[in-house]
This record gives sequence, C-alpha cells and structure tokens, in this order.
Amino acid sequence: MPDMPAPVFVHRRPVTIEWGDCDPAGIVFYPRYFAMFDASTAALFDAALGMPKIRWTKHFGILGIPMVDTRAKFHVPSAYGDQVAIESRVTAFRRSSFDVEHRLLKADGTLGVEGYETRVWTARDGETGRIRSAPIPPEVTKAFAQE
Amino acid sequence: MPDMPAPVFVHRRPVTIEWGDCDPAGIVFYPRYFAMFDASTAALFDAALGMPKIRWTKHFGILGIPMVDTRAKFHVPSAYGDQVAIESRVTAFRRSSFDVEHRLLKADGTLGVEGYETRVWTARDGETGRIRSAPIPPEVTKAFAQE
Amino acid sequence: MPDMPAPVFVHRRPVTIEWGDCDPAGIVFYPRYFAMFDASTAALFDAALGMPKIRWTKHFGILGIPMVDTRAKFHVPSAYGDQVAIESRVTAFRRSSFDVEHRLLKADGTLGVEGYETRVWTARDGETGRIRSAPIPPEVTKAFAQE
Amino acid sequence: MPDMPAPVFVHRRPVTIEWGDCDPAGIVFYPRYFAMFDASTAALFDAALGMPKIRWTKHFGILGIPMVDTRAKFHVPSAYGDQVAIESRVTAFRRSSFDVEHRLLKADGTLGVEGYETRVWTARDGETGRIRSAPIPPEVTKAFAQE
Repeated sequence: MPDMPAPVFVHRRPVTIEWGDCDPAGIVFYPRYFAMFDASTAALFDAALGMPKIRWTKHFGILGIPMVDTRAKFHVPSAYGDQVAIESRVTAFRRSSFDVEHRLLKADGTLGVEGYETRVWTARDGETGRIRSAPIPPEVTKAFAQE
Repeated sequence: MPDMPAPVFVHRRPVTIEWGDCDPAGIVFYPRYFAMFDASTAALFDAALGMPKIRWTKHFGILGIPMVDTRAKFHVPSAYGDQVAIESRVTAFRRSSFDVEHRLLKADGTLGVEGYETRVWTARDGETGRIRSAPIPPEVTKAFAQE
Repeated sequence: MPDMPAPVFVHRRPVTIEWGDCDPAGIVFYPRYFAMFDASTAALFDAALGMPKIRWTKHFGILGIPMVDTRAKFHVPSAYGDQVAIESRVTAFRRSSFDVEHRLLKADGTLGVEGYETRVWTARDGETGRIRSAPIPPEVTKAFAQE
Repeated sequence: MPDMPAPVFVHRRPVTIEWGDCDPAGIVFYPRYFAMFDASTAALFDAALGMPKIRWTKHFGILGIPMVDTRAKFHVPSAYGDQVAIESRVTAFRRSSFDVEHRLLKADGTLGVEGYETRVWTARDGETGRIRSAPIPPEVTKAFAQE
C-alpha cells in the first residue's frame, strides 16, 4: 500500500494510579496496565476521529477493534497516587489490521512501561452475518496522518 | 403470595484469594468481594436450576438478573493465598425481585464478609421491546425450595 | 461530640465509563462502581486535606481508612463512553469512624447510582503494634467543615 | 549453565469464565487473561514447590517474581460460562530470570490464548536493603525438572 499516508497522530492522557490498581507489593498489578492501554487506544481513536468510540464504531459500521496480539515491557513500577501520562500512537496501518504503541511516562519523564498492540478492524459480513476483518477506510488513515 | 415455598437451597463454593485480588495493605480490595459474590449468585442459580447461567437465562427467556441494591459488611480481612468458602442462598422471592445472602467464611470457619443483594428478574417485553421486570416462574421458586 | 463541626465539604470528579468497565449487557459491571467510589473517597480527602492520600496517611500516622460497611443502589445504568460525575461528601464523623455518600450523576443530571460507606480511621498501636481504630484528628474534621 | 536440568513440570488448572470477566462484546476483556495467567504462574510454582506462594516466597527469602515482559496472542475468544483450562510451564530458567508459557484451552481442546512471561527472582539485598534480582536456587530448578 505505497500511497497510504504514514500515521503521525499522537495522543497523550494523564492517568492517576489508584489504590485499587495496586497489589500487595504496593505497585500497579500489571494486568491493570493493559486495561489502561485499552482505554488509551479508545481515547487515541476518539481524538483522531473527533467522536467517541461508541459513535465511530457505528459511523464505520464495525463491531470493534479486537486485540490479536499484545505485549508490555515493564521498566519502572508505579505506586498509588502516582500521576503518570500515557502517550499512544498508531505505528502501522495495514489492510485490515494495525499496530498501536503506548509509552507510560512517570511524572519525571522516565519511561515506566511500553505497550504494543495489534488489532483488527472487525465487522459483521452483510451477507453471511459472520464476524470478519474489514478494510480500514481511508477516512481513518487520513485522520491519523495529521498531527 | 402465601403459597410460595420458602427457599432453602444453599450453595457453597471454594475460592482462592489471588495476589491480584489484594491491595497495597495486602488484603482483598473490597470491590473484588462484590465480583466474587456476583459469580456466587450465578453459581447458586446454576446449581439450583441444573444448568449454566447462559442456558437458564435462555430457558426462562430473560435478559438477566440485574442488581438494584447491594451491601457488604467486612468483619475479618482475607489475604492472598487464603482458601475461603462462599455460602450463598436466596432469602426471599417476591413477584419479580429476590434477595440473596452470601457469607464468606475463612478456613477456620470465621465469618469474614457478609453480602446482601436485591436483584430483579428482567426480560424484554414481547410487544414494546422495552426492558422490564418479569414474574419469577414457579419452576424457579420450586427449585430453591429443595435442599 | 456536640462541638464537632458539621462536614459540608463536597468533591465532584468526572469519570469516563470505559469499555473494560462494562459487562456483556453493555452496562457497567457493578463491582466497578465500588472501585470508582473508593477512588472518589480518596479524591474527596485529597481535596479537603490538600495533599494526596499517600501523604495524608503519613501526615496523620495512620495505615488507612478501611471499609467496614458499604452499600449501593442502582437506579439507571451507564454504558461505555458515558461521561458521568461522582459527587462525594462525608455525612458524619464519629470518634474513629465516619460515613461517606456518593452520587453518580449521568450527563443529564439523572441520579444513576448512590453509594454509602462506613470507614474506620485506622492506625498501628505504638505500644502493642496491633492494628486498631484511632481518634479522627480535629484537623481533619475542621477541613471538612469548610465548603 | 550447562548442568541446569531442563524444566518439564506442567500444571493445568480449570477456569470458569465469569460474567464479570466479559466485555460488551460478550467475550473475555483481554486484561483479565493476564490476571488469570498471573494466578496460573502462582499455581504452577505452588504445585512444583509443594507450598503456597505466601510460603515459598518466605522459604526462599524473596519478595516475589515480578514481571518484566509479557505477551499474549488471542486466537479464539471465550464467553461467560465457558469452562476452559490453562496449561502452564516454565520454558527456561536463567541465573535470576525465567520464562513461563501459558496455553488457554477451550472445552473442545482448541487453543484460545497463548501467554508468555519473563519474570525475575527478586529479593532485598541484605547489606544495602535495595531490591535486586537474586540467583534462582537449585532447589527450585530441580523441582521443575520432574514431571
């Protein structure tokens, strides 16, 4: 897809680490980071497309963007009360799948966690009714081609 | 409803407290108890009705049994690794709502947490399509009238 | 305690309902409301005392404010993408315990959920090392006596 | 480490997918899989070492086995009520870190999710008090060398 514009859009959102996010070691229970990243991906698309997820899924006639592969690397733990920021961006759009990267930054700018996701643009087939991947519309890739 | 049989059925299930259930104080983060109790209510109905929730909701043509009021009293905390048991019973059936009680018992039999729920038997109206309460079928109350 | 000032301080915080907060019925899985209320109580004390929980627990030499009794009434469900607000206040201070009320308001001002909590001001006994309730300092009750 | 025995121990545990594990698409909210895998790793070590985590961390004088890198691939979704099994094994022990693999199998044996973890054997330095990686004791690697 030589003429697909490169995604450059970045979204950053502040997150407060809550008591309930943390485990007996006093640090974030790592599955909670994946929940934070899931919300960050939704917020990233909301910001790029200018409408909330519940509307853009309808607008594009899709069921959602389910995860097929995700990974996280944990560099520095966060504790409750910490004010962190999550920076998220799409790093690649393919025909019907795409990659997202998240960087959780501590208050002093240190990289705390890196997250990687591969998701699929997913719709219900109009004829068969089966759930299947669908081509990502140019309207989407264009929205992410702008800072 | 003078002829409704009194519910006497009791269900008990073992629960292992996981690391991820616990907070920085090293004890169960209390919202997790509500999730455990929700699973216990499902298990209570599964056991009384002899089929899993995904089947009995279809069998009775309901959408579910949403919560309208719940309360818990915390007596003794549990820590990760603890083996506890949750004892659950329906304490009252009314026309379309019912009450559930849960007792979380520590390994030595101490009462750790009490839970109380009021839920509604909820269906979609065949004519209007609106979600509304529905009468609890005698088949259900009878199933709970047996030990 | 006739001379204890009445608590009047109210804290309101916006909450976005995330996809991961919701269940297969498409509405908030109710244990999540308790986690939101727990974060709201922390935010209420942070705002009244002018410092984050991790600091005011140290400042007052306490271990925390564990829950002994909590209840919620569910009036109107919330779905993912909903922007709600949680209004929280202390309704009563006693010697070493206190009550908190939360009102989750939908975007149109409708009352979605009410939450009630009783918590205990909890410290480690300097002599015995045992965890026990402790008197709530006047500095705290005074901070809540101002709007 | 040419003489370190190859880990062959496998642990399998049944898991029931709860209503509260699932999202508005009716399938498991993927961060919940990581919480299930975390509990599976604890259960794997419990089974291999013959004591619960709260005891083997004390026995070996460690703080825990924090995650540094984890990944999951999602092949087939699970819905509430599903009875699945998680098969877990250590695939490699190094000086102070090790890898774990999880395979979540559906009732019909289909591979639903694969999980990969790298964790570190972590202790507090006796002299400096700092948290640092520690060598994995032969007692541990030997326990995993037996089926």
